[in-house]
Amino acid sequence: MRNILIIGAGKSTSYLIKYFLDKSIDEKLHITVGDILLENAEKILENHSNSTAIKLDIFNDDERREAIKKADIVVSMLPARLHIEVAKDCITHKKNMVTASYVSKEMEALNAEVKANNLIFMNEIGVDPGLDHMSAKQVIDDIHDQGGKIILFESFTGGLIAPEDDTNLWNYKFTWNPRNVVIAGQGGAAKFIQEGTYKYIPYHKLFRRTEFLEVDNYGKFEAYANRDSLKYKEVYGLNNILTLYRGTIRRVGFSKAWNIFIQLGMTDDSYTMEGSEYMSYRDFTNSFLPYSPTDSVELKLRYYLKIDQDDIMWEKLLELNLFDGAKKVGLKNATPAQILQKILEDSWTLEADDKDMIVMYHKFGYELNGERKQIDASMVALGVDQTYTAMAKTVGLPVAIATLQILNGKIKSPGVQIPINKHVYQPILKELQEYGIKFIEKEVPYLGYNPNNVAG
Amino acid sequence: MRNILIIGAGKSTSYLIKYFLDKSIDEKLHITVGDILLENAEKILENHSNSTAIKLDIFNDDERREAIKKADIVVSMLPARLHIEVAKDCITHKKNMVTASYVSKEMEALNAEVKANNLIFMNEIGVDPGLDHMSAKQVIDDIHDQGGKIILFESFTGGLIAPEDDTNLWNYKFTWNPRNVVIAGQGGAAKFIQEGTYKYIPYHKLFRRTEFLEVDNYGKFEAYANRDSLKYKEVYGLNNILTLYRGTIRRVGFSKAWNIFIQLGMTDDSYTMEGSEYMSYRDFTNSFLPYSPTDSVELKLRYYLKIDQDDIMWEKLLELNLFDGAKKVGLKNATPAQILQKILEDSWTLEADDKDMIVMYHKFGYELNGERKQIDASMVALGVDQTYTAMAKTVGLPVAIATLQILNGKIKSPGVQIPINKHVYQPILKELQEYGIKFIEKEVPYLGYNPNNVAG
Repeated sequence: MRNILIIGAGKSTSYLIKYFLDKSIDEKLHITVGDILLENAEKILENHSNSTAIKLDIFNDDERREAIKKADIVVSMLPARLHIEVAKDCITHKKNMVTASYVSKEMEALNAEVKANNLIFMNEIGVDPGLDHMSAKQVIDDIHDQGGKIILFESFTGGLIAPEDDTNLWNYKFTWNPRNVVIAGQGGAAKFIQEGTYKYIPYHKLFRRTEFLEVDNYGKFEAYANRDSLKYKEVYGLNNILTLYRGTIRRVGFSKAWNIFIQLGMTDDSYTMEGSEYMSYRDFTNSFLPYSPTDSVELKLRYYLKIDQDDIMWEKLLELNLFDGAKKVGLKNATPAQILQKILEDSWTLEADDKDMIVMYHKFGYELNGERKQIDASMVALGVDQTYTAMAKTVGLPVAIATLQILNGKIKSPGVQIPINKHVYQPILKELQEYGIKFIEKEVPYLGYNPNNVAG
Repeated sequence: MRNILIIGAGKSTSYLIKYFLDKSIDEKLHITVGDILLENAEKILENHSNSTAIKLDIFNDDERREAIKKADIVVSMLPARLHIEVAKDCITHKKNMVTASYVSKEMEALNAEVKANNLIFMNEIGVDPGLDHMSAKQVIDDIHDQGGKIILFESFTGGLIAPEDDTNLWNYKFTWNPRNVVIAGQGGAAKFIQEGTYKYIPYHKLFRRTEFLEVDNYGKFEAYANRDSLKYKEVYGLNNILTLYRGTIRRVGFSKAWNIFIQLGMTDDSYTMEGSEYMSYRDFTNSFLPYSPTDSVELKLRYYLKIDQDDIMWEKLLELNLFDGAKKVGLKNATPAQILQKILEDSWTLEADDKDMIVMYHKFGYELNGERKQIDASMVALGVDQTYTAMAKTVGLPVAIATLQILNGKIKSPGVQIPINKHVYQPILKELQEYGIKFIEKEVPYLGYNPNNVAG
């Protein structure tokens, strides 16, 4: 038996663990799941014969090292900041390691040591980062192999609600960490390249500079820019690229309405509001509007943000009870962002049978034999229920497949790495297709960065 | 002879030093000015018989201590962050001290020691902070003395260009540190109280939430909110106040046009722009606009920010050469804010004979004998030339007068302090009138916070 240790039995581990358990006999696997709460590990393993649930406190050095020592490979599903101690132990005890998180500076710093020990630390192998790397790099490498030159790369991902459960005016529910949605885009201008020119969008304009996407059978989406597009130039080897843009997908109309919160200042997480605990939702909204001896909070807001009487954005605000004078915030010393999150959670929390959806969309513009061409590739994954979510599937399966590939000696390159090498991503993408995670590619005319398709 | 040591011979010391020199015979004063550049000190003293110019490097402990030891009182006109070593030496050598800067935490921490040594460290005795404290506190104390209760306090200050030299469309030139103007309002939401309700304005809306002010003989001004209004509640003893607001004064229309820079992202000081050195002003502007294969930078900006064809804001942008493709930025690794500052300095730098103007405006709402009343007080100071500026006058004279008051034993309360006590501000305000620094008070109807004067 080969021992796989999975640390953390959180939301995104359902498919991951099922994959291992399903293959445990054929592949001779024993799965150990360690979690700070033993019952979490027990629940997910359902007493499967080839499994062991253990209590594992990541901050307890002995507990952590003991578990790692017994494993043949370690999968860390902890929050990104907690991987590093696990990683150090994996070096000490000469174990390979897999995470779905971005490579931190601390993790990167271990590279020489990991290589010296001939170990593989595979990171960024979830959905985003992960599936985005692999699916993009496959097309990029293919174009390069043909002698082509990439001149445009745009890439978009979004975690959304499945169409059949898409029941509110925002076409959005929290299928993942709500806090990340509330503070998305903060911390500096978004930077990207359009037709050779560096472009910068400040946070307060970010949600007004969306691009539209059309996915066959799923209709129209929009995307706002991520902060970090530029780093993919180096990572993917896209020197001299003319257009490089990464974005987050939402349903059409979400961003324009979300911008209301930004304009008001409701997404600010840098200060606490006086008397937040006893504030009503209406008081909260009114805090961002000038005092008036006569005018309603409603009219003040409409006037301030120029929302017409017949604008659907208004209905979106009403749907969230933003003007409710009876509902109390009930959070002590809360920031605007924390209060907004609470208000949104009232409306955007999943119902018991709601299912999620992951959408990914890439555009590749390239020159080949003197011609300019474009390939668009898209992928949609749907959740089955609230355990077997699209998020858990698209995060967990790439992690699981990569882990087994490493265990079986199919991935050989040592070091701290991400899945951008052909021998790594090819078998993984191929196997993912068996699980319905499949990119649909189509050739489209190359227009450069030209969202409105206008001619010069 | 009593020895006054002035450390720092910068822009705002002209009136300060002239005041001492003019009184040097009557008051038996010897003035020593120390500056890192000896010629700065020499130039400002013009070989006056009761003066000595010295080279003083504030970071040279021996030089600094030697100079302080010889003084009877020390005036530090250094940047605020540099006072603290001077302050410590003043304790060691038992010297009183005067600064025009905000009391820092480090300065505050010296209070017990300063008191124990029976010393006076007077701070915040320039124009803002300084003249604002004194002029406001005088009216507040007067109302309290009559048994009244303050229910509204709004206070505004601005450093502007004198009307006769007000020659550009922005009605603004840099009369003080340009960088502070470019990054004004950043670092968190502005907070204040209006009619008992806490209000918050995010940076990207700050310059769209101005209030208007009318100053007799000088016309209309506007003001945007400062970040720090709330602290004056405690400092001035304004408990249970309904409205508390501090703001910065500009000429009408400035803020709405300035908001264009904020909306574009041009005031961001948190990242450097790719290729800033070789960028034209037009490239800089275009960096904040989407790429288009067809449309001009001009039309993209007009469309993005909805600037009508006949809007004067457009002419304001043209006046700054924001669309000039020939003018180069010429700054390496510059932030947007640094580049914007450079562009503005091309247009807003003072001509040789330009004069500045300081405007201050207070509103005091109060209840007295069951009646609600309001007093408005305003002050305008005009510069004579670029040495004897309104800024140097309104900063330097309060510092100078306070210094002499301390030297003459008229101010007796020991400790680290600001000029909010009657025995301190009364003689200073009285003497300032001799120099034309005078507040004009008038009674106006109390309307509460009600800028549009609407009835319920």
